[in-house]
Amino acid sequence: MFIEGKNAIKQAIDENITINKIFVDKNYQGRKDDIIEMAVQHKIKFEFVPRVFLDKKSKTGHHQGYIADSVDFKYCEIDDILNKAREQNQHPFIVLLDGIEDPHNFGAIIRSCECAGVHGIIIPKNRAVQVNETVIRTSTGAISNMLIAKVTNLKDAVNYLKQNDIWVFACEANGENIYNKKLPQNIAVIIGAEGFGIKKTLIDYCDGVISLPLMGKVNSLNASVACGVTIFEILRQRQQN
Amino acid sequence: MFIEGKNAIKQAIDENITINKIFVDKNYQGRKDDIIEMAVQHKIKFEFVPRVFLDKKSKTGHHQGYIADSVDFKYCEIDDILNKAREQNQHPFIVLLDGIEDPHNFGAIIRSCECAGVHGIIIPKNRAVQVNETVIRTSTGAISNMLIAKVTNLKDAVNYLKQNDIWVFACEANGENIYNKKLPQNIAVIIGAEGFGIKKTLIDYCDGVISLPLMGKVNSLNASVACGVTIFEILRQRQQN
Repeated sequence: MFIEGKNAIKQAIDENITINKIFVDKNYQGRKDDIIEMAVQHKIKFEFVPRVFLDKKSKTGHHQGYIADSVDFKYCEIDDILNKAREQNQHPFIVLLDGIEDPHNFGAIIRSCECAGVHGIIIPKNRAVQVNETVIRTSTGAISNMLIAKVTNLKDAVNYLKQNDIWVFACEANGENIYNKKLPQNIAVIIGAEGFGIKKTLIDYCDGVISLPLMGKVNSLNASVACGVTIFEILRQRQQN
Repeated sequence: MFIEGKNAIKQAIDENITINKIFVDKNYQGRKDDIIEMAVQHKIKFEFVPRVFLDKKSKTGHHQGYIADSVDFKYCEIDDILNKAREQNQHPFIVLLDGIEDPHNFGAIIRSCECAGVHGIIIPKNRAVQVNETVIRTSTGAISNMLIAKVTNLKDAVNYLKQNDIWVFACEANGENIYNKKLPQNIAVIIGAEGFGIKKTLIDYCDGVISLPLMGKVNSLNASVACGVTIFEILRQRQQN
């Protein structure tokens, strides 16, 4: 999706819409420019291009020297996720991702979450893959049915969930065997990054650590598989209540 | 791993060792050549190269005009998998893959199987990804602890397992909800290909179809996630017996 013109692009950045790249009239190069300042601040790529390039790309004819190539996805707030559970008359079921970097894993996780009836996913703003074209493609349509909130600080998100009577568990090694535990109805689980797991300081904020029993010599599953196995065990327990 | 010389390469092909490519002295091009005939027959890539290329690559100095770039992995027989379960004094737990094509999925599946205590994996010789470098890398070491049998015909494999008192289930949509079913101790499950699922004719050979409950609008999980969720539910039930 292309967003044209200064104000529309500023608004899109403010609204957390994912922008792949901003094309800027190369005549503006070198001068003070608030769109470029915003792009730098939000780590959005930009490229100076000839004006004719913009004229060709433009559908409105009013690009004002700026066209943003954006991803057609809008992040939500945590409250939207809580409201979704409430509207469906269900206990909240939420997944937090601590720094997933591989877009294929993120896409597969969105797909699994949609299949398992998760109400929403919470991801951090920084040091993690955002919703991009690969994520959308890998989710095989699930993204259009999934709420994703992007937060500055996962710890604050965990605290906010706890304030809302939701139990938050870190999915990590050396915790309680998930199959021996009766999980609470209001539940959120944190899945760690590929290779690094969940940050120690974040684990300390959780209500507990749950683990999958591992029978072999390898000490972890692929992140999207670990997420899938965990949320389907939660689904199994929810369906038996 | 490089395999040098005519006989060593012939033996490697006979022993089902996966060969990425065979480099052949380009002076042999056009003449009748039994290595090339075997390569064509087994769908192994080959490339004619200058003799100096082979001389440089050779470690033994006896390449005889042929060097095969092989994967350091040896397939087993189904009986090896059954024996492994017997030696561990466990009920057999086996995964069959019907035409998985993505090496990342295959690698993740090997990793999950190793973690869930699966005794071995059975794959078809044709129309499916074989153990290659990407599969080995994605399995994060699990491959060295996993038996994989390559068979000409999955139906024959299913029949052979059934003759050995193993129940074989197809994991597909519209089957029995896996969470409502008490699964047998001796068990094999078939996971279908990405996008296509399990061939109808193969499903007919199975003892039943088991399904994961899907709560959303998307009608399937990623193949490696589906495999992970299914085998961990089997593990859960095995641990409770």
